[in-house]
Amino acid sequence: MPVVLGPNRYGKAETRLVRVVRDGGVHHIKDVTVSTALSGQMDDVHLTGDNAAVLPTDTQKNTVYAFARKHGVAEIEDFAILLARHFVESQPTIHHARVEIEEYFWDRIPAGADPAPGAEERQHSFVRSGREVRTCAVHHDRDGTTTVVSGLTDLVVLNSTGSEFSGFIQDEYTTLRPTKDRVLATAVTARWRHLSAASPYRESYGEVRRCLLGAFAETHSLSLQQTLYAMGERVLNTREEVCEVRLAMPNKHHFPVDLTPFGLDNPNEVFYAADRPYGLIEGTVLRDDAPAARFAWE
Amino acid sequence: MPVVLGPNRYGKAETRLVRVVRDGGVHHIKDVTVSTALSGQMDDVHLTGDNAAVLPTDTQKNTVYAFARKHGVAEIEDFAILLARHFVESQPTIHHARVEIEEYFWDRIPAGADPAPGAEERQHSFVRSGREVRTCAVHHDRDGTTTVVSGLTDLVVLNSTGSEFSGFIQDEYTTLRPTKDRVLATAVTARWRHLSAASPYRESYGEVRRCLLGAFAETHSLSLQQTLYAMGERVLNTREEVCEVRLAMPNKHHFPVDLTPFGLDNPNEVFYAADRPYGLIEGTVLRDDAPAARFAWE
Amino acid sequence: MPVVLGPNRYGKAETRLVRVVRDGGVHHIKDVTVSTALSGQMDDVHLTGDNAAVLPTDTQKNTVYAFARKHGVAEIEDFAILLARHFVESQPTIHHARVEIEEYFWDRIPAGADPAPGAEERQHSFVRSGREVRTCAVHHDRDGTTTVVSGLTDLVVLNSTGSEFSGFIQDEYTTLRPTKDRVLATAVTARWRHLSAASPYRESYGEVRRCLLGAFAETHSLSLQQTLYAMGERVLNTREEVCEVRLAMPNKHHFPVDLTPFGLDNPNEVFYAADRPYGLIEGTVLRDDAPAARFAWE
Amino acid sequence: MPVVLGPNRYGKAETRLVRVVRDGGVHHIKDVTVSTALSGQMDDVHLTGDNAAVLPTDTQKNTVYAFARKHGVAEIEDFAILLARHFVESQPTIHHARVEIEEYFWDRIPAGADPAPGAEERQHSFVRSGREVRTCAVHHDRDGTTTVVSGLTDLVVLNSTGSEFSGFIQDEYTTLRPTKDRVLATAVTARWRHLSAASPYRESYGEVRRCLLGAFAETHSLSLQQTLYAMGERVLNTREEVCEVRLAMPNKHHFPVDLTPFGLDNPNEVFYAADRPYGLIEGTVLRDDAPAARFAWE
Repeated sequence: MPVVLGPNRYGKAETRLVRVVRDGGVHHIKDVTVSTALSGQMDDVHLTGDNAAVLPTDTQKNTVYAFARKHGVAEIEDFAILLARHFVESQPTIHHARVEIEEYFWDRIPAGADPAPGAEERQHSFVRSGREVRTCAVHHDRDGTTTVVSGLTDLVVLNSTGSEFSGFIQDEYTTLRPTKDRVLATAVTARWRHLSAASPYRESYGEVRRCLLGAFAETHSLSLQQTLYAMGERVLNTREEVCEVRLAMPNKHHFPVDLTPFGLDNPNEVFYAADRPYGLIEGTVLRDDAPAARFAWE
Repeated sequence: MPVVLGPNRYGKAETRLVRVVRDGGVHHIKDVTVSTALSGQMDDVHLTGDNAAVLPTDTQKNTVYAFARKHGVAEIEDFAILLARHFVESQPTIHHARVEIEEYFWDRIPAGADPAPGAEERQHSFVRSGREVRTCAVHHDRDGTTTVVSGLTDLVVLNSTGSEFSGFIQDEYTTLRPTKDRVLATAVTARWRHLSAASPYRESYGEVRRCLLGAFAETHSLSLQQTLYAMGERVLNTREEVCEVRLAMPNKHHFPVDLTPFGLDNPNEVFYAADRPYGLIEGTVLRDDAPAARFAWE
Repeated sequence: MPVVLGPNRYGKAETRLVRVVRDGGVHHIKDVTVSTALSGQMDDVHLTGDNAAVLPTDTQKNTVYAFARKHGVAEIEDFAILLARHFVESQPTIHHARVEIEEYFWDRIPAGADPAPGAEERQHSFVRSGREVRTCAVHHDRDGTTTVVSGLTDLVVLNSTGSEFSGFIQDEYTTLRPTKDRVLATAVTARWRHLSAASPYRESYGEVRRCLLGAFAETHSLSLQQTLYAMGERVLNTREEVCEVRLAMPNKHHFPVDLTPFGLDNPNEVFYAADRPYGLIEGTVLRDDAPAARFAWE
Repeated sequence: MPVVLGPNRYGKAETRLVRVVRDGGVHHIKDVTVSTALSGQMDDVHLTGDNAAVLPTDTQKNTVYAFARKHGVAEIEDFAILLARHFVESQPTIHHARVEIEEYFWDRIPAGADPAPGAEERQHSFVRSGREVRTCAVHHDRDGTTTVVSGLTDLVVLNSTGSEFSGFIQDEYTTLRPTKDRVLATAVTARWRHLSAASPYRESYGEVRRCLLGAFAETHSLSLQQTLYAMGERVLNTREEVCEVRLAMPNKHHFPVDLTPFGLDNPNEVFYAADRPYGLIEGTVLRDDAPAARFAWE
C-alpha cells in the first residue's frame, strides 16, 4: 500500500508592497499584497529534503520588490503576469506559477473649500478609501498558457426595498414566513475570467464593477440567486473580454425588530443586522462557448 | 482585611441597528452599533445576586430599538443623549449612563453614465463607503450633567513625502539612521470633547474631519508628535464648540526595501509596509480654559 | 453568445450550536459551528426568481437545531452525514449536499488540590481549551455516494531546533543564507479523506492528531516540505481508514535578532516572530490505490 | 483662547519576542508581545518637532531584544520591571514608562503511548496551548514608584447549569422572562494589582487563575455580577500580595432554541450561541485599605 506525493505548491504569501511613483511633485501610490505559489519538480524536497529544485520563498519576495522597482506596478494583472512568467521561464524546476494580488484603494486628500497656502502639498497626501479590495489570480504554465482571473471582494451593498422571498419549499422544519418587502444586503466577492491575457485591465475593472453595482441596484429581487445571476449576466453581456463570472454573496440578514410589545409598529424601518448564521449563495455564470478554464480557478 | 466593591458598570454591548427612513421613494439609512453601560445602586446585585435594582441588558437593547422607531436616529450624539438621559431619569437605581455609538457610512450607488430605465430605483440602493468609522461617547449623570465626546477611528492616511525624523537621542541600543524623507502613514483615532451637549454635531463632524485631514496633509513633519499636535490644534482653532482633542496615531512603518543586492537603487519608491511592531503616539491637545472633563473620557 | 448558469450552491453558513447532554448531574457539551450547502434543480431560481425548488436557508438552520435535539451530536462526522443525507433524501429538488462542521474543545474546570464543598459542581463547569479546531466536510449525492473528509486547523507547533534549510537555488534575487539550525513553526491545517463513511471517527481523530504531532516533532527537517510529507505519510502508514491527506502549513518565520550592534551574540536564543509575509507550503500525500475523490474536496 | 499640550505618551507597540533557553538538549520557550510607552519632557517634540528628548521607538524595540538576551525572560512582570526602570533611569528626558506584556502558553508535544526512537527530540517540540493569554502592565515613575498589574484575558468559561436570572426591574421595554436555569458563559478579562513590585509572580499567577476558575465554577449564580464579585473576592481572600482586582466579563448569551414548531421539547439541551449584542459586566473588588492606585491602571 505505497504512499505517494500528490498535488503540491509552495510560495511566499502576503508580501506587502507599497509603490510610490514620483511624477514631479505629484505622487501616485499603489498599495498591494502579493502572494506567489510555485510547483514543479518537487518530489525530492518532499521525500528527502533535498532543496536543489527549490527557489526559496524569500527569493520570491525579493523578486516582487525588485520587479516593482524595475517594471513599476501598473495594473495588478500585468504585474502578476510578469512575475508568474519570470518564475517559470527562469527556473527549469518550476513548471507552474500562480500569483495572487490584492489592491487597496486610496484617494487624494481633498484641498477643501478654502485651500490653505500649503494646498499644493496635497499632491502627496492620501486617505485610504476603504471601498472594496481589488484582486487578481494569474497562472502561468510551462506549456505557455497564461490564465487571468480578476476580481473584487468585500463590496458591501444594500437595497432597502425591492426584494421579496416567497414560494419556497415548506417542510416540517420550515418556520420562515414569505415576505414581499425585505432588506437585501450582501458583501460581494466576484471573480471573472478573461478570454486572454491581454485584456484592458484598468477599464475592465471599472466597467465590471459598474455592471455589478448596476445589476444589483436595478434587479427587483425575488431571490438572492436571481440577483446573483443578473449581476453575472450583465457583466458578460457588457464586457466581451470576460467569459466566466463566479460570485459568492452572503445574505447579510437584516431582521425587522418586533416592536409590538412596546405598542409600536415597524413598517420596515428598524432592523437588527445579524452576524451569524448567514445565507451564502455561490454561483457561476458563463458563456456557453467559454474555453476550458484549466487551472485558472485553482 | 475586608473586601469591598469598587467602581462597576454593566450594559448591553454592540447592539446592531440599521434604521431606514422612507422619504417617499427615496430612502435614507443609518447603520450604527450601540453600546450602553449603566451604574448606580449595584451593591446588592454584586453581594447577594439580588437583581431588584437591575434593568436587564436585554431591556437596554429593546430600548435602543424602540427609541429608533419613536425618535429616529439623526446624529449619533443626539440619539446617545436621548438614551443616556432616559435610563437615568426613568430608573431611580440607575445613577449614571454611558452610551457609545459607532456609525458606518454608506453612499448611494451611482446611476452611471448611461442610466437604465430602472435608474430611479437607485433611490434605495447603497454601497458601504468603507471610509472611517464615526464614534461618540455620551455620559449622563443624575446630577444633571451630560458630557459628549465625538470621534472617528480608522481614518487611514499617508504622506508619501514631507516627513523627516532626525536629531533624536542616541543610546547604546540605537541603530536607527536619521532620515530627511520618509513615508508617514497612520490610522487616526481621534476623539474630541464638546463644551456643551448642544453642538451642531453634523456640521461639527464634517469640519473636524476636514481639519484633521488638512493638518495632516499640510504639516511638514519632523516627528509624528508634531503632526498630531498640529491636527489637534487646528481643530481647536477652527471649532469653538470643541474644548479638547485626544489622538492616538500608530506609526504604520513603511520601510524602503534595500534593493542594492539586485543592482538597483531605491529612491523612496518601493516600500515594505510592516504590520508589527509599530510606533504608537498618543496625545491630548486642549484649551487652557477647558472645563473639567469629569467622567467624559471614561 | 448565450450566457448560461454554471455550478452553484446555496446554504446556511455558520450556524452556532451548543449541545448539552445531562447525564444526571454530570454534563457534557459539544460546541460546534455548522455550515450547509445544497445544490440541485436551481435553474429557475437563478433565471426567474421562482423559489419552488428552494429549501430556505432558514429551514436548513432549523434542521440543524432539531436534529441536535432528536439525534444528539456524537462525532461531528456522524452528525454531518445525518444532515447531508436528510436534505438530499427528503427533497427531490436537492441533488447534493455538503455539510461542514467545526468543533471547539472544552475541558472540565479542575477541582484543584483542595476541592471546596461545591466541588461536585465542577461536573457542569468548563473552560475552553483553545487548542486546535476539529473540522469535517461531508458530501452526499443523490447517486448514493457519501464522502467524508475529517480535519483540524490552527494546530500551532514549533521545533526550537532540529531544522535546517540549505542547498536551494541561488538566482540573482537570492539573498537568503543557508542555515543549519533554525526555529520551525507552523499552524497546521490538515484534512484527511476516509475510505468509507463508516470510520471510527473519534478514535481516528485522536490517532491522526497524534501522528501529525509525532511526525512533526521527530522529523529532523531539511525543509518544511519534508516535514509535511512525513506527517502525511505517518497518518497513512498508521491509519488504514484514511486514503489521502492534504496539508497546508505556513512557515511562521522566527528570525534571530542581530544583536551585534549591542555587543551581544545570539546563539539562536532571541527571535523576532514575524507576521507577514510568510512561506506557505501545501501538499497532498495519498495511497497510490486511493479511490477517486470525486467531490470530496469541493 | 490658547491651546496647550495635555497628557501624552509614545512608544513601540507589539514587539514580538520568542526567547529560547537551551538547557542542554532540553529547550524552554517564552513567547511574548511587548509594548512600551514613555512620557516626559515632550513639549518640544509636539510643538516644534525637535526630537532631542525622544528615545526612538525603534530603540525601545532594540532594547527589548537586547534585554531578552542579557537578562532572559523569567516572569513577564520581572522583565517588564527591568525595562520600565531602564528607560526612566537611563534617560533624563523620560520621566515615566509603562511596559505591557502578553504571554502565550505552549505545551511540550507529548511522546505518546508508544514513543518512537526519536522521542527524546520532544525536548524541543512544542504545541501552542491556546488557553488564556497572560498579561501584565508595569509603570515606573522617576519618583521611584513601580506599580505592577498582572492579568489574563480570553479565559473562556461556561457553566451549563447553576445559573439563574430573575427579580429584575420590569419597565415598558422589558420582554425578558425570568429564568431559573440558564447557561452562563463568559470570556474573563481579569487584572489584579500587586501591593508591591516584589510579588512571587509565577506562583501568584497560577493561584489567582485557580481562584478565578474555582469561584466561577462553585458560585450558584443569581447574576453575572454576583459571580464576578465572588471571583474577585476569592482572589483577595486567598492571595495577600493582591490588593485590587478588576474584571470585565461579557455575558456570552446561549439562547435555548424554541423547538416546539417541530414537535420537540428543549430541556436546556440545544442552544444558539449568539455573537452580538452581548451583556458586558465590569467591576472592581478591592481591599478597603488598598493603597492609592496612582497610575497603575492607566
